[in-house]
Amino acid sequence: MTTVGILGGGQLARMLALSGAPLGLRFLVMDTVADACAGQFAPMIVGDWRDETALAEFASRVDVATFDFENVPAEAAQWLAERVPVFPSPTALAVAQDRLAEKTLFRDLGIPVPPFAAVDSRASLEAAIARIGTPCILKTRRLGYDGKGQFRLKSPGDLDAAWDALGVQATTVGLILEGFVAFESEVSVVAVRGRDGEFRAWPITQNWHVDGVLSASLAPAPVDAALADAAVAHARALAEALSYVGVFALELFCRGGELLANELAPRVHNSGHWTIEGSETSQFQNHLRAVLGLPLGATRMVGEACMLNWIGEMPDARAVLAEPGGHWHDYGKESRAGRKVGHATLRADTPQELAATLERVGKSLGREVQVQPVIAALR
Amino acid sequence: MTTVGILGGGQLARMLALSGAPLGLRFLVMDTVADACAGQFAPMIVGDWRDETALAEFASRVDVATFDFENVPAEAAQWLAERVPVFPSPTALAVAQDRLAEKTLFRDLGIPVPPFAAVDSRASLEAAIARIGTPCILKTRRLGYDGKGQFRLKSPGDLDAAWDALGVQATTVGLILEGFVAFESEVSVVAVRGRDGEFRAWPITQNWHVDGVLSASLAPAPVDAALADAAVAHARALAEALSYVGVFALELFCRGGELLANELAPRVHNSGHWTIEGSETSQFQNHLRAVLGLPLGATRMVGEACMLNWIGEMPDARAVLAEPGGHWHDYGKESRAGRKVGHATLRADTPQELAATLERVGKSLGREVQVQPVIAALR
Ligand SMILES: Nc1ncnc2c1ncn2[C@@H]1O[C@H](COP(=O)(O)OP(=O)(O)O)[C@@H](O)[C@H]1O
Ligand SMILES: Nc1ncnc2c1ncn2[C@@H]1O[C@H](COP(=O)(O)OP(=O)(O)O)[C@@H](O)[C@H]1O
Ligand SMILES: [Mg+2]
Ligand SMILES: [Mg+2]
Repeated sequence: MTTVGILGGGQLARMLALSGAPLGLRFLVMDTVADACAGQFAPMIVGDWRDETALAEFASRVDVATFDFENVPAEAAQWLAERVPVFPSPTALAVAQDRLAEKTLFRDLGIPVPPFAAVDSRASLEAAIARIGTPCILKTRRLGYDGKGQFRLKSPGDLDAAWDALGVQATTVGLILEGFVAFESEVSVVAVRGRDGEFRAWPITQNWHVDGVLSASLAPAPVDAALADAAVAHARALAEALSYVGVFALELFCRGGELLANELAPRVHNSGHWTIEGSETSQFQNHLRAVLGLPLGATRMVGEACMLNWIGEMPDARAVLAEPGGHWHDYGKESRAGRKVGHATLRADTPQELAATLERVGKSLGREVQVQPVIAALR
Repeated sequence: MTTVGILGGGQLARMLALSGAPLGLRFLVMDTVADACAGQFAPMIVGDWRDETALAEFASRVDVATFDFENVPAEAAQWLAERVPVFPSPTALAVAQDRLAEKTLFRDLGIPVPPFAAVDSRASLEAAIARIGTPCILKTRRLGYDGKGQFRLKSPGDLDAAWDALGVQATTVGLILEGFVAFESEVSVVAVRGRDGEFRAWPITQNWHVDGVLSASLAPAPVDAALADAAVAHARALAEALSYVGVFALELFCRGGELLANELAPRVHNSGHWTIEGSETSQFQNHLRAVLGLPLGATRMVGEACMLNWIGEMPDARAVLAEPGGHWHDYGKESRAGRKVGHATLRADTPQELAATLERVGKSLGREVQVQPVIAALR
């Protein structure tokens, strides 16, 4: 009997547990809040990675540990890794946690990136703006997610506003300035690497964000094969450089037929949720297979898939459930503004059918705006 | 927040909970043993349907109730149904629990059945053998499963042995004598009926039993369309006659191009496990959708699927996990002779590919005998 420990008990932990049950695994989740949604389907320790007693109990009850969110401090991950196998490794986690280290690694591996510069003072922000130009984005180096911890500068005159918003974090989590990319599209590579080094990627996914939060994903992304191959090659180079074990996502911008890498998420990823129904093996099960040293599952598609994220509150399930290829995912969370509470995956045999399904669902739910860009990409 | 109560906490309850989680459902399982495998992923009450306190607690904590096994006594189901909605209904359950009532209903609906007769004494057994002839099978009317509670008579001379084996049950659970059917194949219809009467069936499945226990299932069954249609029509007639709500399976024998109905299982069924990966919607999720009055999901196939049952102990997972269409289901149970501990589903795009997969898996696991009849049916 193998117990997998998961630090963090949100929807990713929940879907990991649900997809790992058929492997005969047991789970133990650790989260700071007692009503974390993974706790509905897995035993849970309520506690914090800063609480050494809780972390020690967690370590003593699991055979291997992994993460449902990437912001576990490297020291806590390290402490844990000295007691129990941890995947991905604390080193890989540390790189992915820091936008500066991450972009530096991308560049060192020859993966194209937008221009960027570290910012640790008002003066260095000024110098960075002078070098990179506007528009640009000031971001926290650490702890940002879903577009949080970002400030967009349209012109050099926005310097003060940017510094007011994020300057106080220059000495805590650090800052980075990036050139703003007027991208045509955003894509991600969701991939997995095993303990033996085997690497597999799912077909690349096109993503749409609203206010920095993922709104919709489409797989396979309607991009040409050379671009898709290049994206996967970048993901593979990264995974190998980091001796990465498990599932991760590499987010990229496409502009003028070129790719620019944005960030690495060292975990199962929202843009890979469609793999539950849209692929032979889900990202969740392959993450567990990788972490446990089991053979990786096939990442081939089963039809065409679109994932729609539900933010804040769940819409009425019926419109989706009534669709022949409609699959519903309610994370069992309370409604709250801005919170990821669920998603739907729509699967069809052809892009045309998928577009028609999206039309119907968008209309029934009054979410034409959310589905419209996906429909446009499919046509 | 809706809580679904499940009486019985075995693998069926476990797979119901896992497939219902994405609908945002909570579960409460009740089982007599504390280590029932559904309890690994759902809260559980340890208790018995005969224990009114436990049953009352169960009823007070759920919004709707269903079953993972059919042998809950009709009175307990009735008691529960007076407190909380119960699907399938106690009436439907009562018919399916009694082989005599079940076969009588089949016959009344014009569904062909093997000859049968009620047996309540040694004399009536003798009369039944005289009428039906040998070979024949004496079965308990109630509480039989997986071939248990059956005695096969090759000739009238086996009467004493049959009576010695089962006679004592004539006055407890009752007995029935059935003509032995020299079938060419066994098939089942797994189907679902909603609260609004909507009916859907999965493509029919061919089944192979070893010692009365399911060994392998193949979907779609390689039978001609007219036969498949007839089987589904029988299932529909039954569901309508019983005002059935939820998933059920109708098991049938095929002999000389004709169907003979064997039995009705008033629950999700082992011969429908392949629907998890092999169909757009699994039997487990559709059962919950039906019970909750939600739209039913599509029952179309996704490829060709074969399910192999693991009895007694789990084989090594790797041979299956290494297959592109290999899916593993370990129920998290202790090994025990004759116990259903897990299954694998193999999925492929064509019958030829599926046969090749079965060859490889059968060989790696030393289970050529288990896969051979399925391969033969595919070729
Ligand atoms: N340099 C950039 N140029 C243009 N858009 C950007 C840039 N950086 C981020 N964005 C937009 O904001 C979204 C969220 O930013 P990201 O860096 O991925 O942070 P997070 O960790 O919050 O996902 C991106 O998916 C993209 O839509
Ligand atoms: N009348 C019969 N003729 C031939 N084989 C039978 C007959 N009844 C049962 N069997 C065989 O035994 C298996 C189990 O019997 P069944 O009546 O389905 O009981 P259970 O409830 O145990 O599944 C059947 O699937 C079939 O292989
Ligand atoms: Mg991002
Ligand atoms: Mg049977």
